[in-house]
Amino acid sequence: MELRPLDALNEARNKRVLLELKNGKQYIGKLKSFDIHINTVLEDAEEHVDGELKRKIGTTFIRGDTIILISIE
Amino acid sequence: MELRPLDALNEARNKRVLLELKNGKQYIGKLKSFDIHINTVLEDAEEHVDGELKRKIGTTFIRGDTIILISIE
Amino acid sequence: MELRPLDALNEARNKRVLLELKNGKQYIGKLKSFDIHINTVLEDAEEHVDGELKRKIGTTFIRGDTIILISIE
Amino acid sequence: MELRPLDALNEARNKRVLLELKNGKQYIGKLKSFDIHINTVLEDAEEHVDGELKRKIGTTFIRGDTIILISIE
Amino acid sequence: MELRPLDALNEARNKRVLLELKNGKQYIGKLKSFDIHINTVLEDAEEHVDGELKRKIGTTFIRGDTIILISIE
Amino acid sequence: MELRPLDALNEARNKRVLLELKNGKQYIGKLKSFDIHINTVLEDAEEHVDGELKRKIGTTFIRGDTIILISIE
Amino acid sequence: MELRPLDALNEARNKRVLLELKNGKQYIGKLKSFDIHINTVLEDAEEHVDGELKRKIGTTFIRGDTIILISIE
Repeated sequence: MELRPLDALNEARNKRVLLELKNGKQYIGKLKSFDIHINTVLEDAEEHVDGELKRKIGTTFIRGDTIILISIE
Repeated sequence: MELRPLDALNEARNKRVLLELKNGKQYIGKLKSFDIHINTVLEDAEEHVDGELKRKIGTTFIRGDTIILISIE
Repeated sequence: MELRPLDALNEARNKRVLLELKNGKQYIGKLKSFDIHINTVLEDAEEHVDGELKRKIGTTFIRGDTIILISIE
Repeated sequence: MELRPLDALNEARNKRVLLELKNGKQYIGKLKSFDIHINTVLEDAEEHVDGELKRKIGTTFIRGDTIILISIE
Repeated sequence: MELRPLDALNEARNKRVLLELKNGKQYIGKLKSFDIHINTVLEDAEEHVDGELKRKIGTTFIRGDTIILISIE
Repeated sequence: MELRPLDALNEARNKRVLLELKNGKQYIGKLKSFDIHINTVLEDAEEHVDGELKRKIGTTFIRGDTIILISIE
Repeated sequence: MELRPLDALNEARNKRVLLELKNGKQYIGKLKSFDIHINTVLEDAEEHVDGELKRKIGTTFIRGDTIILISIE
């Protein structure tokens, strides 16, 4: 059972997640790692804008303070 | 009796709450967990914009610094 | 006599206060609790926009960093 | 002689000061208290917009991070 | 010889400096004090907008996080 | 195997990376160093706006809090 | 060999650097000092907007949190 928010992210390691950023862009990729600032590394990351795939940006470090949400299911 | 703001969130665990974010979007879901930064995990989260259901995003981690309020009743 | 700003909030516990947020919205409700970040819980909270009651949102946690002011009289 | 910025605020206790906030509004009132975050309590606070008195909001807690300046003379 | 940025401010004590804020306004006055957050007190402060003197605001506390730069010569 | 986000940046040292900033600009260069704030130094940095090379700015220090993402592959 | 981002700034002491700020303005001057917040002092600083010299502002303290980048070559 998850007790803290980071536990939920921990269970999502190596699964595909959707990140939404403060600038409105979305990134879909495999969650490789994160830290307490919610700095996050995605593998095979895809950038989506208004629901459309814009570009593939491979392994990508995303700074935590730009993240609004991480949908993990 | 609740003495601190986080006590009120604690009593809302496993209940449906409404989160309003700084970008104007609202999320309704079951409150699974939160931490002192107000990082929050909702289960069965729904995104609402201008009162309309936009999408269902399942279990979702929401970064605390994007949150304006959590209505817990 | 109040010496620190939080003393003034402490005296306002269980009284109706008016919160004004950075997004221009106002919330009126009974001040139940607050912490050093000015995270605040209002009971029977009402949202007001441009002086008009918009909705009632019950017990509500408001994140401190979105607050501009709390009028306590 | 004042050595640190907070000393200047300390000398202004119980005097009328003018606060200017990041949203462009000004508040004039008697400075009752402040802390290291510049959280401030004004008594008999008046809100001024574009030089005009808009409303009287009594004893008011103002969150420090919304403040641009405090004119203390 | 100055080694750290605050040393340069220290040498400017009691001299007239120009502060530029994030909202585009400029303040000219005698630098009385500052702290590590760059909270600053100016004496005989003048507000300038687009190069024009707008008003004189006497002794003024300016919150450090609103400051872009301080020209000290 | 990388366990933390900074491990991924560490593996990218001396490789060309793409940084995207909050102002929408992109910088491509060789990653020389970074710290826990994600302050970053690029060598032979190029500024790109809307996919076009705008200017070459040599060795460049980029403040971490302006960074959205670092694509490292 | 530089290992940390601040090492690169350290090597640039007493050399002319270009700072770019979040408001889009650029400052060129001799880097006299900086600290861990990237608060910076430039000597003989020049303000440039859209590539044009706007004014000379002498010795200038620039608050670190307004800086996007420092081009040091």
